[in-house]
Amino acid sequence: MDSGALESILRAFRSGELDERQAAERLKNLHFEDIGFARVDHARASRQGFPEVVFGAGKTRAEIVGIVESLVRRAPNVMVTHTDEGTFGEVRNVITDAEWHERARLIRVRRDLTDRGVGVIAVVTAGTSDIPVAEEAALTAEAMGNRVERLWDVGVAGIHRVLSERSMLQRSRVAIVAAGMEGALPSVVGGLVSVPVVAIPTSIGYGASFGGGAALLGMLNSCASNVTVVNIDNGFGAGFVASLINRKWQPPAD
Amino acid sequence: MDSGALESILRAFRSGELDERQAAERLKNLHFEDIGFARVDHARASRQGFPEVVFGAGKTRAEIVGIVESLVRRAPNVMVTHTDEGTFGEVRNVITDAEWHERARLIRVRRDLTDRGVGVIAVVTAGTSDIPVAEEAALTAEAMGNRVERLWDVGVAGIHRVLSERSMLQRSRVAIVAAGMEGALPSVVGGLVSVPVVAIPTSIGYGASFGGGAALLGMLNSCASNVTVVNIDNGFGAGFVASLINRKWQPPAD
Amino acid sequence: MDSGALESILRAFRSGELDERQAAERLKNLHFEDIGFARVDHARASRQGFPEVVFGAGKTRAEIVGIVESLVRRAPNVMVTHTDEGTFGEVRNVITDAEWHERARLIRVRRDLTDRGVGVIAVVTAGTSDIPVAEEAALTAEAMGNRVERLWDVGVAGIHRVLSERSMLQRSRVAIVAAGMEGALPSVVGGLVSVPVVAIPTSIGYGASFGGGAALLGMLNSCASNVTVVNIDNGFGAGFVASLINRKWQPPAD
Amino acid sequence: MDSGALESILRAFRSGELDERQAAERLKNLHFEDIGFARVDHARASRQGFPEVVFGAGKTRAEIVGIVESLVRRAPNVMVTHTDEGTFGEVRNVITDAEWHERARLIRVRRDLTDRGVGVIAVVTAGTSDIPVAEEAALTAEAMGNRVERLWDVGVAGIHRVLSERSMLQRSRVAIVAAGMEGALPSVVGGLVSVPVVAIPTSIGYGASFGGGAALLGMLNSCASNVTVVNIDNGFGAGFVASLINRKWQPPAD
Amino acid sequence: MDSGALESILRAFRSGELDERQAAERLKNLHFEDIGFARVDHARASRQGFPEVVFGAGKTRAEIVGIVESLVRRAPNVMVTHTDEGTFGEVRNVITDAEWHERARLIRVRRDLTDRGVGVIAVVTAGTSDIPVAEEAALTAEAMGNRVERLWDVGVAGIHRVLSERSMLQRSRVAIVAAGMEGALPSVVGGLVSVPVVAIPTSIGYGASFGGGAALLGMLNSCASNVTVVNIDNGFGAGFVASLINRKWQPPAD
Amino acid sequence: MDSGALESILRAFRSGELDERQAAERLKNLHFEDIGFARVDHARASRQGFPEVVFGAGKTRAEIVGIVESLVRRAPNVMVTHTDEGTFGEVRNVITDAEWHERARLIRVRRDLTDRGVGVIAVVTAGTSDIPVAEEAALTAEAMGNRVERLWDVGVAGIHRVLSERSMLQRSRVAIVAAGMEGALPSVVGGLVSVPVVAIPTSIGYGASFGGGAALLGMLNSCASNVTVVNIDNGFGAGFVASLINRKWQPPAD
Amino acid sequence: MDSGALESILRAFRSGELDERQAAERLKNLHFEDIGFARVDHARASRQGFPEVVFGAGKTRAEIVGIVESLVRRAPNVMVTHTDEGTFGEVRNVITDAEWHERARLIRVRRDLTDRGVGVIAVVTAGTSDIPVAEEAALTAEAMGNRVERLWDVGVAGIHRVLSERSMLQRSRVAIVAAGMEGALPSVVGGLVSVPVVAIPTSIGYGASFGGGAALLGMLNSCASNVTVVNIDNGFGAGFVASLINRKWQPPAD
Amino acid sequence: MDSGALESILRAFRSGELDERQAAERLKNLHFEDIGFARVDHARASRQGFPEVVFGAGKTRAEIVGIVESLVRRAPNVMVTHTDEGTFGEVRNVITDAEWHERARLIRVRRDLTDRGVGVIAVVTAGTSDIPVAEEAALTAEAMGNRVERLWDVGVAGIHRVLSERSMLQRSRVAIVAAGMEGALPSVVGGLVSVPVVAIPTSIGYGASFGGGAALLGMLNSCASNVTVVNIDNGFGAGFVASLINRKWQPPAD
Repeated sequence: MDSGALESILRAFRSGELDERQAAERLKNLHFEDIGFARVDHARASRQGFPEVVFGAGKTRAEIVGIVESLVRRAPNVMVTHTDEGTFGEVRNVITDAEWHERARLIRVRRDLTDRGVGVIAVVTAGTSDIPVAEEAALTAEAMGNRVERLWDVGVAGIHRVLSERSMLQRSRVAIVAAGMEGALPSVVGGLVSVPVVAIPTSIGYGASFGGGAALLGMLNSCASNVTVVNIDNGFGAGFVASLINRKWQPPAD
Repeated sequence: MDSGALESILRAFRSGELDERQAAERLKNLHFEDIGFARVDHARASRQGFPEVVFGAGKTRAEIVGIVESLVRRAPNVMVTHTDEGTFGEVRNVITDAEWHERARLIRVRRDLTDRGVGVIAVVTAGTSDIPVAEEAALTAEAMGNRVERLWDVGVAGIHRVLSERSMLQRSRVAIVAAGMEGALPSVVGGLVSVPVVAIPTSIGYGASFGGGAALLGMLNSCASNVTVVNIDNGFGAGFVASLINRKWQPPAD
Repeated sequence: MDSGALESILRAFRSGELDERQAAERLKNLHFEDIGFARVDHARASRQGFPEVVFGAGKTRAEIVGIVESLVRRAPNVMVTHTDEGTFGEVRNVITDAEWHERARLIRVRRDLTDRGVGVIAVVTAGTSDIPVAEEAALTAEAMGNRVERLWDVGVAGIHRVLSERSMLQRSRVAIVAAGMEGALPSVVGGLVSVPVVAIPTSIGYGASFGGGAALLGMLNSCASNVTVVNIDNGFGAGFVASLINRKWQPPAD
Repeated sequence: MDSGALESILRAFRSGELDERQAAERLKNLHFEDIGFARVDHARASRQGFPEVVFGAGKTRAEIVGIVESLVRRAPNVMVTHTDEGTFGEVRNVITDAEWHERARLIRVRRDLTDRGVGVIAVVTAGTSDIPVAEEAALTAEAMGNRVERLWDVGVAGIHRVLSERSMLQRSRVAIVAAGMEGALPSVVGGLVSVPVVAIPTSIGYGASFGGGAALLGMLNSCASNVTVVNIDNGFGAGFVASLINRKWQPPAD
Repeated sequence: MDSGALESILRAFRSGELDERQAAERLKNLHFEDIGFARVDHARASRQGFPEVVFGAGKTRAEIVGIVESLVRRAPNVMVTHTDEGTFGEVRNVITDAEWHERARLIRVRRDLTDRGVGVIAVVTAGTSDIPVAEEAALTAEAMGNRVERLWDVGVAGIHRVLSERSMLQRSRVAIVAAGMEGALPSVVGGLVSVPVVAIPTSIGYGASFGGGAALLGMLNSCASNVTVVNIDNGFGAGFVASLINRKWQPPAD
Repeated sequence: MDSGALESILRAFRSGELDERQAAERLKNLHFEDIGFARVDHARASRQGFPEVVFGAGKTRAEIVGIVESLVRRAPNVMVTHTDEGTFGEVRNVITDAEWHERARLIRVRRDLTDRGVGVIAVVTAGTSDIPVAEEAALTAEAMGNRVERLWDVGVAGIHRVLSERSMLQRSRVAIVAAGMEGALPSVVGGLVSVPVVAIPTSIGYGASFGGGAALLGMLNSCASNVTVVNIDNGFGAGFVASLINRKWQPPAD
Repeated sequence: MDSGALESILRAFRSGELDERQAAERLKNLHFEDIGFARVDHARASRQGFPEVVFGAGKTRAEIVGIVESLVRRAPNVMVTHTDEGTFGEVRNVITDAEWHERARLIRVRRDLTDRGVGVIAVVTAGTSDIPVAEEAALTAEAMGNRVERLWDVGVAGIHRVLSERSMLQRSRVAIVAAGMEGALPSVVGGLVSVPVVAIPTSIGYGASFGGGAALLGMLNSCASNVTVVNIDNGFGAGFVASLINRKWQPPAD
Repeated sequence: MDSGALESILRAFRSGELDERQAAERLKNLHFEDIGFARVDHARASRQGFPEVVFGAGKTRAEIVGIVESLVRRAPNVMVTHTDEGTFGEVRNVITDAEWHERARLIRVRRDLTDRGVGVIAVVTAGTSDIPVAEEAALTAEAMGNRVERLWDVGVAGIHRVLSERSMLQRSRVAIVAAGMEGALPSVVGGLVSVPVVAIPTSIGYGASFGGGAALLGMLNSCASNVTVVNIDNGFGAGFVASLINRKWQPPAD
């Protein structure tokens, strides 16, 4: 509970500025005003570099255009995930600086380019089929104020490929690694770097890959201690948490 | 590949200090000397605050004493996990400043107390049965140079408990949350803070908990975007990765 | 076996009103007449407020219209679940007071508005995607004579939302809680109220949600003792059982 | 938030009884005092007939005796589940009216015998091996102020057994049904009664019973709409929720 | 190995009717001629009442017509399963006595009406949705020379329905029971009869029915000892094995 | 309902032999007297050759001796499964003709040797480790009045072994086949014979055998249409159902 | 690391042909040139008989044509898997000797017909539905320079079929066996031959086949010690590894 | 069928050496004499270098000694797996050249040291805990006449370790790779070599490793095409099949 606000209500009550009913009402509202991150007002969230995100699947084009129009008024950075190029066309009619990202199937408006990270985020894939998920992670990280380096198609069956890029990996503050099939790449990357690795299992594979389940289990059992895991195909989540790891951080003032 | 080392070999070769066979041999060895974190010499690892860790299960007491004696010569901080008090007794005979941590069933030698973190790591459990796993995470984080705040038994069925500690949570740089049964606490904590949450599913539960599988699935499907997950009961891994998130970081010099 | 009926047959037999063959036949029929709820005649069921329900999927529009026409003759309240608006159009041609409920994709005729509940049933969802299932539960409960309060989109990642409605929850006789993904909301609600919570896992989610399986496991492992669970997406069942919990009850006369 | 308490703090502040710091402190504490059921003070919980429950597994005999001694001071009804007869012997040394229930392996102190239910709770098992779980449910329900009728070993392969008891079942306000193996009995009971059925899958079985998983799935897929399910072997939970269904209920005063 | 054939080859060899090469060749062929049922010539199989069966899915209409035309030349009874009415139209153009069975989606030619069974086969379903699978079993059994009695929609939630037909069930030589969802009906029928029950789990259900897996597990764990199980939706297999149970049997002459 | 009994009660009532209360009572009891097999009186069951069976696991030796003593008074054939040799010693003290079957760990009293089968039952195993389960099936079949031929260790990796015994298999009325690991033998036997095959998956195996689950799935997916399946390790059930298949059968008189 | 190349760089450096920067650069590149098989230049791979393979699914026709045109310039043998006849038409427009393989849905260019195998590879299927997968294996093996013998539809329910071909199987250097449903055929073939068997589970089946999972488990649990397994439907992988087993082999020169 | 044997029987019959009954008998026996590998006489198997193997678990020491004594009379190489040192002591009393292999818990008699391989077999482990399984594979391969090179503890989190041994790996004819946890090492080794890789998942791990299931799935989904898989912990099988791959091979003479 915000002590300053609490005390100012008490004082306003003592001074007669608020009557008892009003003071009680204000105090009840105060109750939830400091609970946290999820409920913070939009203005503050966007000042901190959190973009507004719309999950596009299952919404009509008109709905998406309407929502985006509304969001861009209060937030500089807005993304629409799981959408299509036709929707982008309609969004661009009203928001001319919207960008279309084909591989991630994602619309992005990015007006706040502030660099909020202490270092670079490496985004790595095992195969070319993993790129859409990884690209969603990369675009999210950029929208949250990070510099991103992409490294595609360096899976473990050709181990020299990831090794030849190890100096880039070793300069990063955090690595995101997307892999399907056996999901082994995060362990290899984890062994090459001394920073956190956020692993994304992808649903790439067939037969006993069980829709990404094999990759998920592989990553959870990683022998590298610096690997953590997000849900299958959850590019957005990986980009989000990697951004929180990378960001210049200061404890909130009391 | 370490450019400086490479060039100094070339020069030594040109100067005749190394003959062709010697230079070739040195170059071949150089090949793997820079691959990374996993292979770095112990001295450097301990300078960076990485403790030496022994997995105690399946080793005899004599073996553990021998290994620990050897490790403490080169590393200030050493841990033995999954061990027992009898083993600790024998370790303390030779290493008098070893500590026994009953709940985590863990021996720790901690001589390097350097603070390497930018903030505090919160370690949280849903129930009292989750404490051994969480304590393993907390002790690991301390051994890696972090300040830790523990918050036990604040599960979601009594939601006021975690809420009453939200200001502590909101001051942390990263939160570790251990929960068994339905594994819901990381989502609640994730909604309260704007930093990464490292979730540990524990094997606490019975029936359809499937040895922690239910908690694991719950955490992977968290509706809070700042949650990542490690393996069931993997306290060490969670403490390790949270330490990497919290540490004062600078990109390695080329 | 209904003793009164049994004895009246015996008397009619002794009086000669029934011959031996007729008495035997009546006694055989009597055999199943008291077995119970499932077999009770329609008139009695509808007097008790049980609606007639048609599962619409896999039936033609003509079939549904025919069935509904037949049912409304004997029951005041009739529902068609898993149907579409086109079917509704044809139903309304013949039953002009039929209602279309878009979100639940459900047709309802509701002529008996008797209040049969001792209190209110709260119907709660974690996210907006869970609303169709929850709405099916709510409409069922209403058709069975209950007052319903709806509370949408109060999932655990923004815990203040459900907390701000706790006084409504605490006034309810029973709560229905629908959630997908990690399925954690029923535990939180269970901790806030001292009445039964009927949890509905929904198939909302992707990857390791396994079609609602993760939410199902989460709810079965709830640390709140007042939570019970129905099948994935089973809004009708949850509404049905919550209605039985809420109803004014008297033991049947012998 | 308790409006009466809020206003009385405000008045005490205005009257000078509390200074600003004290009023602020009181208001902060008030914050969590009304959140709900889980946190209510013990005195009130026991006035409502909620027993104190100790999970005995993993605790020493001395610990259990200590906890029980402490609990009986403030609550008339106390239970220890998952314990053994030796522990009971030590508990009885200090609490002479403690009861030992061999089948459920449960210690119970029951001093408050108030009848809090509107009707009877039927507790039913498919086989004799299911009795320990069912008995835990029955003893819980009794400790919460309910009349219980037990019906053992009426599984579906001898369907006449449950049918011959249907009038008892039909007089109950709620039925608890425990079954292992194929878990079919709740569906049959559900078809015989028009009240809620709380189904408990038990871990009885072998081979493809998968530790109760087969019974659990059977119950979740029940074709009877009045069946809800708790976790495998969760007798306590089933007794708890059935007690909440059966209890004389009035909405809380605002 | 057929001793008569073996000896006649030896004699033909001794008599010079066969030279050494010819005798050796004949003996090699003889090798596999008696291995069994699967390889028996078609004429003998159809004399025994085994129909020719074509799995229609994945075959073109022209292919099916061609195969059926060929089969009817040597077998009096032929079935095409998993097909459609359009294919039936083309089959009937050439085989005018072909029958179309809409519910089972099955074409049948049935010219041999010999009764080969010792009794009646009861075919039972829990719900109306299980009928297509059960009907496939019934039609198979008829094609193999059995009298079949059908009993639809007698699931366990309305237990009086199956009970009212128990005398028919008790007169049968074998019962086939198809059920989806919780798959409990075979246990109930198994308890009513003293003959084998062949249980067919069907894929009817949703959510935690896992495509018939819940019903399958329920049936495998049946508490009735006379229940055996076939694969999910395997109506043909159940009809086949029930026919073998019912058939008038004599050990083959040596 | 037994018509004869019903009418004789009616006549006794009319004649005054029974008063109304007595007639009503008799009629109520009659209600369940014809429901079936499970409830038939013991005398009749043993006249039909159904043995009394005691599941020994979890019972004390004294309990087993007591139960067996009681059962042998009314039934000529009695079995105790899942027991040990020490128990057998105590049983033999009081029932001197009891037999001990080491491999199946089963006590059997067999006084009724009537042959009730139309043919022989073949009992087959893939490996020597499957013999305990198969022997339980064989001993059950014998106790139910069948001639049994045993064929051990003829698994598919040495296919000549089962082939060399095919004439024995082809003379049998029904075959029981027990196999662990991949569970392939029932398919091979199914292809060799034209009678039903009752397949028992055993829990023999390791790793990906998942406690018999792999064998179970293999048998359910058998490409031989005459294969049905019982639960993992369920030797008793397989012997029971095979006995029902083999028995000389006549429809019950009405 | 290629010693010859290393020394020639050193010499060129000493001779002044390379300056220090150039030598360092060359040495760095050399770093990855010898890591192995995956990275070897295309010319060498095709000299060894490894074909170029394109996974066709998800690529446009134009893309496939472009890729194939490029590949055939440097490799004599090229395959496109998971494609269709329309794509083949466009490929053939530019590469007139391309072949279309309908069953495997595979385009193949095969210009290098060198025989690289020591013996024959047998490719075997249990059923006709397994042929597409097996044919992909066979075509791959041919493209890698092997003689292949195909044996279709010899599943275990008609065991004489595979037995009658055992002499062919026994002459092979390695056998590939594709089977769905229970997946038993590899065990039988494994028992007939003394060479490696590469087992391919196929997704053929329904119900409890779980998309090939049952066959996969069966093969992993094979009682034949010479069986190894690849992923479900992985015809290409099986053909590839069988080719490596069969090929004339010599250790690489140092 | 062995043509030579067949013809010699025919000739002996014609010459009168065999009468008709004798010839028929011989021909019947001949029937199974050529079916294959599994049934070949022991003398021939040991001439081919196949060792006799005893699975020790579940056998008494006396039984094992007896079996081994019998086997060494006809086979030069004999192994006992899954046994203990005490058993070894008793075996050595009678077979003085028996060897004890502590890590694999395996007794081996190895008198035939013939080299039957074309190259070397590499046996590789990811961790030290995988060594027992790998050692069983290595000892099997040696007993079958192969040279073996062992490479322990080169898991993917320290990728430089396996890379530094790649020249050894690249000289091998076949590699066996044992790994638990995520099971990624076979993919990396598969990418380094151009020979077959036989992957053994081990049950090393905890939590979501599911007893080796995660490693198994990882290996089945390997992105390296030269990887095949055996059952979890199946060291013997991997050693056996690798020996068959490596052996000098010639097609059997007809």
